[in-house]
Amino acid sequence: MHVEGLSINLATVRAQCGFAEAVEICLKHGITAIAPWRDQVAATGLEEAARIVSANGLKLTGLCRGGFFPAVEAAGREKALDDNRRAIDEAATLGADCLVLVVGGLPGASKDIDGARRMVEEGIAALLPHARAAGVPLAIEPLHPMYAADRACVNTLRQALDMCEALGPGVGVAIDVYHVWWDPDLANQIARAGAMKAIFAHHICDWLAPTRDMLTDRGMMGDGVIDLKGIRHRIEAAGFHGAQEVEIFSAENWWKRPADEVITTCVERYRSCC
Amino acid sequence: MHVEGLSINLATVRAQCGFAEAVEICLKHGITAIAPWRDQVAATGLEEAARIVSANGLKLTGLCRGGFFPAVEAAGREKALDDNRRAIDEAATLGADCLVLVVGGLPGASKDIDGARRMVEEGIAALLPHARAAGVPLAIEPLHPMYAADRACVNTLRQALDMCEALGPGVGVAIDVYHVWWDPDLANQIARAGAMKAIFAHHICDWLAPTRDMLTDRGMMGDGVIDLKGIRHRIEAAGFHGAQEVEIFSAENWWKRPADEVITTCVERYRSCC
Repeated sequence: MHVEGLSINLATVRAQCGFAEAVEICLKHGITAIAPWRDQVAATGLEEAARIVSANGLKLTGLCRGGFFPAVEAAGREKALDDNRRAIDEAATLGADCLVLVVGGLPGASKDIDGARRMVEEGIAALLPHARAAGVPLAIEPLHPMYAADRACVNTLRQALDMCEALGPGVGVAIDVYHVWWDPDLANQIARAGAMKAIFAHHICDWLAPTRDMLTDRGMMGDGVIDLKGIRHRIEAAGFHGAQEVEIFSAENWWKRPADEVITTCVERYRSCC
Repeated sequence: MHVEGLSINLATVRAQCGFAEAVEICLKHGITAIAPWRDQVAATGLEEAARIVSANGLKLTGLCRGGFFPAVEAAGREKALDDNRRAIDEAATLGADCLVLVVGGLPGASKDIDGARRMVEEGIAALLPHARAAGVPLAIEPLHPMYAADRACVNTLRQALDMCEALGPGVGVAIDVYHVWWDPDLANQIARAGAMKAIFAHHICDWLAPTRDMLTDRGMMGDGVIDLKGIRHRIEAAGFHGAQEVEIFSAENWWKRPADEVITTCVERYRSCC
């Protein structure tokens, strides 16, 4: 009863279990694709995590996450690059499909979002030789505009793809429906991303209306307003047939339920809504 | 001590005072431009509000608000149009520069945002003859993408201007920095809006980092991350020299302070930050 095409981003059960236990529950449900976060890998130990991945033949649809490039001082930006190089090495060790980049927002008390965006592009450019040498694709994840100040100043798929074009091979995008579902230009930009062969990951969850918290009130697929099947159809038409990766931050709901119940629901909703 | 170029959207002091008192405080501070909300006008009475406006030579930089066009049933959409026609009549009676449109989000349990957007365009098209006959410009206000589901499915300046082009004369945009500051395409679209002579209003406040509430945690100019002077510079370069209208929803801060203190601060920050 292998569940084809479904990946679980381990943030979805981060409140309930660590890496090994999360993997065990996924396997029990026939899920053989996951995407862990670096802190989850670190808590288990990189080598042990790699062993678990290899021993179970797991596919890693991504490692979360690198990024956070902008900083007021050059030394801060260098420090960020060092950390990103370690993230690339970890992704290589784990055999992840890509390193997901949450690029960072405005540094310090800056009001210069154009400047922050330049720092992001320069940061990725500086990182690319290491990523290419390690064979780790970098996936820029455009984040919802409500995170522009403090998490990511790359806020549309179009903007991310412009950056990919400027940066060249080895950089693509992670398309998370939560961040892009509202975009009037979404259909065009998915097609463009496909033509660029730049779709490296497809994350799913749902947008709840109302949303009660800007960070940790994401919905289970089917509980919100996103046309998940419609977006998936466009992504497949653009040539990406990789797994749909469930990533749900839900402090007041899913993080409070048993992990087994959460994963059971992910499978059900993946089958009925995606 | 007339404060040139500053307008107060009366939502900024809606918790503290009604229409007449808010006007009195604005006048005391040398502010002769305001933008009331329909419920504030209704509470005073339309005729009395119009008398206060006229007797004090007030400029109305807008009336808030029409819109909310999408509805599941045709009857619901007709009802919305009727209400919008009344809003146009009120704007005409008050001599407002424009009627601001918050266009509405997804109707019912819909996941069809393209469909909602078509309903918006059809709704404005149906409203236009009445607006033109009344001499009331309609200002589409693109709202931040975090409101796409429940308040407005027009979420970028580009999208709003595309709609204006399709609809023809009598429709333009209200550019509120809170909703558009993050947009990588902002500079281009402000220039385009200017070339179209479609900038009908310019609203200001600030984006706080972190933002604690999606609706009622807007910041006073200078307290957040928005490059207010930079955006104003572009708007003036595009040919709009109308007032900057302060619109702050702030349940936990500014709505709890005396209105006089709020308006004093608006004037100070307008002079130093805008």
